Amino acid sequence: MENNKKRIVIALGGNALGNTLSEQMDAVKTTAKAIADLVEEGHEVIIVHGNGPQVGTINNAMTEYAHSGNGRQITPLSVCVAMSQAYIGYDLQNAMREEFLNRGMKPKNTTTMVTQIVVDKDDPAFKNPTKPIGQFMTMEEALKEAGERGWTVKEDAGRGYRRVVASPKPIDIVEIDAIRAMVDDGNLVICCGGGGIPVIKNGNHLTGAAAVIDKDFAAALLAEKLDADMLIILTAVEKVAINFGKPDQKWLDEMNLDEAERYCNEGQFAPGSMLPKVQAGMKFVQNGTNKKALITLLEKAREAINGKTGTIITK
Amino acid sequence: MENNKKRIVIALGGNALGNTLSEQMDAVKTTAKAIADLVEEGHEVIIVHGNGPQVGTINNAMTEYAHSGNGRQITPLSVCVAMSQAYIGYDLQNAMREEFLNRGMKPKNTTTMVTQIVVDKDDPAFKNPTKPIGQFMTMEEALKEAGERGWTVKEDAGRGYRRVVASPKPIDIVEIDAIRAMVDDGNLVICCGGGGIPVIKNGNHLTGAAAVIDKDFAAALLAEKLDADMLIILTAVEKVAINFGKPDQKWLDEMNLDEAERYCNEGQFAPGSMLPKVQAGMKFVQNGTNKKALITLLEKAREAINGKTGTIITK
Repeated sequence: MENNKKRIVIALGGNALGNTLSEQMDAVKTTAKAIADLVEEGHEVIIVHGNGPQVGTINNAMTEYAHSGNGRQITPLSVCVAMSQAYIGYDLQNAMREEFLNRGMKPKNTTTMVTQIVVDKDDPAFKNPTKPIGQFMTMEEALKEAGERGWTVKEDAGRGYRRVVASPKPIDIVEIDAIRAMVDDGNLVICCGGGGIPVIKNGNHLTGAAAVIDKDFAAALLAEKLDADMLIILTAVEKVAINFGKPDQKWLDEMNLDEAERYCNEGQFAPGSMLPKVQAGMKFVQNGTNKKALITLLEKAREAINGKTGTIITK
Repeated sequence: MENNKKRIVIALGGNALGNTLSEQMDAVKTTAKAIADLVEEGHEVIIVHGNGPQVGTINNAMTEYAHSGNGRQITPLSVCVAMSQAYIGYDLQNAMREEFLNRGMKPKNTTTMVTQIVVDKDDPAFKNPTKPIGQFMTMEEALKEAGERGWTVKEDAGRGYRRVVASPKPIDIVEIDAIRAMVDDGNLVICCGGGGIPVIKNGNHLTGAAAVIDKDFAAALLAEKLDADMLIILTAVEKVAINFGKPDQKWLDEMNLDEAERYCNEGQFAPGSMLPKVQAGMKFVQNGTNKKALITLLEKAREAINGKTGTIITK
């Protein structure tokens, strides 16, 4: 068992958390089971999660509240990301504890660490914000916000206008030494939630950025920094496919970096969906030796680690 | 220096954090200086903070948001407390890092840990909620909320009606082992924010309670669990006084448990203000040997530890 013990960074997607608080409280139970399975097999697990719907709700609520009273301040997006880390982490650490106790296991100390991730102020993503967040607005409202707050707003698939923010690449994890200490000490750590709080270095000061970091790229960086054996990106499909939805569709068991790169260049993977997951996996694998990235369903994580399903990316 | 090195739990009051986000971003700079002073002297510091204005803002915003759209769910107070831990911790850990770097010190790993604290479902505080939170309401609004949500509402000093919640005593810290591991490893930990997320044990499940735990009592419990040498409760006065505001007013340098108890019984300390601070200090001191509690101003913390000011509570 000890020989097969792996250090695994796991990136939880939207389906592991649901869209609302009540969905979240249900979803984390299933998520906790899947993670407890891995812990029970002896693996060291570090949890990263997304926060799309959650940070949207928090950002909407804080923005509406600021608008509804004189002198109330807008809460920056970076602070909303911070809040979403605790909003989700609280439920997740609670569910983990309960699942360990229900199995008669000693509950591994599970803790959520508020994490900042450094991004580059010159990241090209800041010039081309693409990630929609917050509430839908009419064109008039959108133009007003754009004028008053400098927001970039875009029409979103006929449903109205929304604020769009940058999704810059993560370059450093501010709390990495504390996270490593906790992991090395045998604790189950939840960190880099929502891709981390995006901050920009400004001398000794870190300034919150109006951005949202892709959680799969954040997880890849964390896995590299922690010298993990494996990065698992959990999503809504069991395997990655090429020629998706076509007669010659093919589910992939494994791809090496050359193959993955070729598929990316062929446009096999949807931008904003499977493409960043494959790219995050590639990034982790190429920066180490004997590293593996795995893309699969939450419920299949255990089987996939044992090579029975999922898509593995290797060097 | 090593001989005088103390493990210190520090409880930050409202003036260390301000009432709004911009006040907070300013206030944490001063707070970080005071804490860095202690770290620079070789002490091990663990930070607990209040969250009165912050959890009020978050609770107001999330409640108004739920009311303004069909099907939107109310965010329980326990989740709002969780969010306030990250809202404050993010700023505080950032300010600590910057202060260490500005001093040319290696930045001690500072991290905020989302913390749950167990309370007793039979705590008498649940029968007599006293702590006001959230927005002011008219009597009609207050009665409507009371009917629909089972809230207790009270008239607040002529300013309108507010929800009041219980302030039960903290009895156990769920994440204590993880916190201890971090502290033992030499990290600067921010935890039990806002008195901790109040939860009630229900078999293996922890249920969030609609309550707010007094942060000074939470800090006293934490100090006991971490076998700290000292609990420092920072507030708006340099020392505790008896006969406050009277001709025979006297500032206290020190009081032992017997004296403190006598003063409490005489009604020397204002309930909801100095009384719980003195009681939290007493609780920490009486459960150990050679323990000291100190009540003083944030800016005087360093002098006070060296015996030059503040009020010390001893056994």
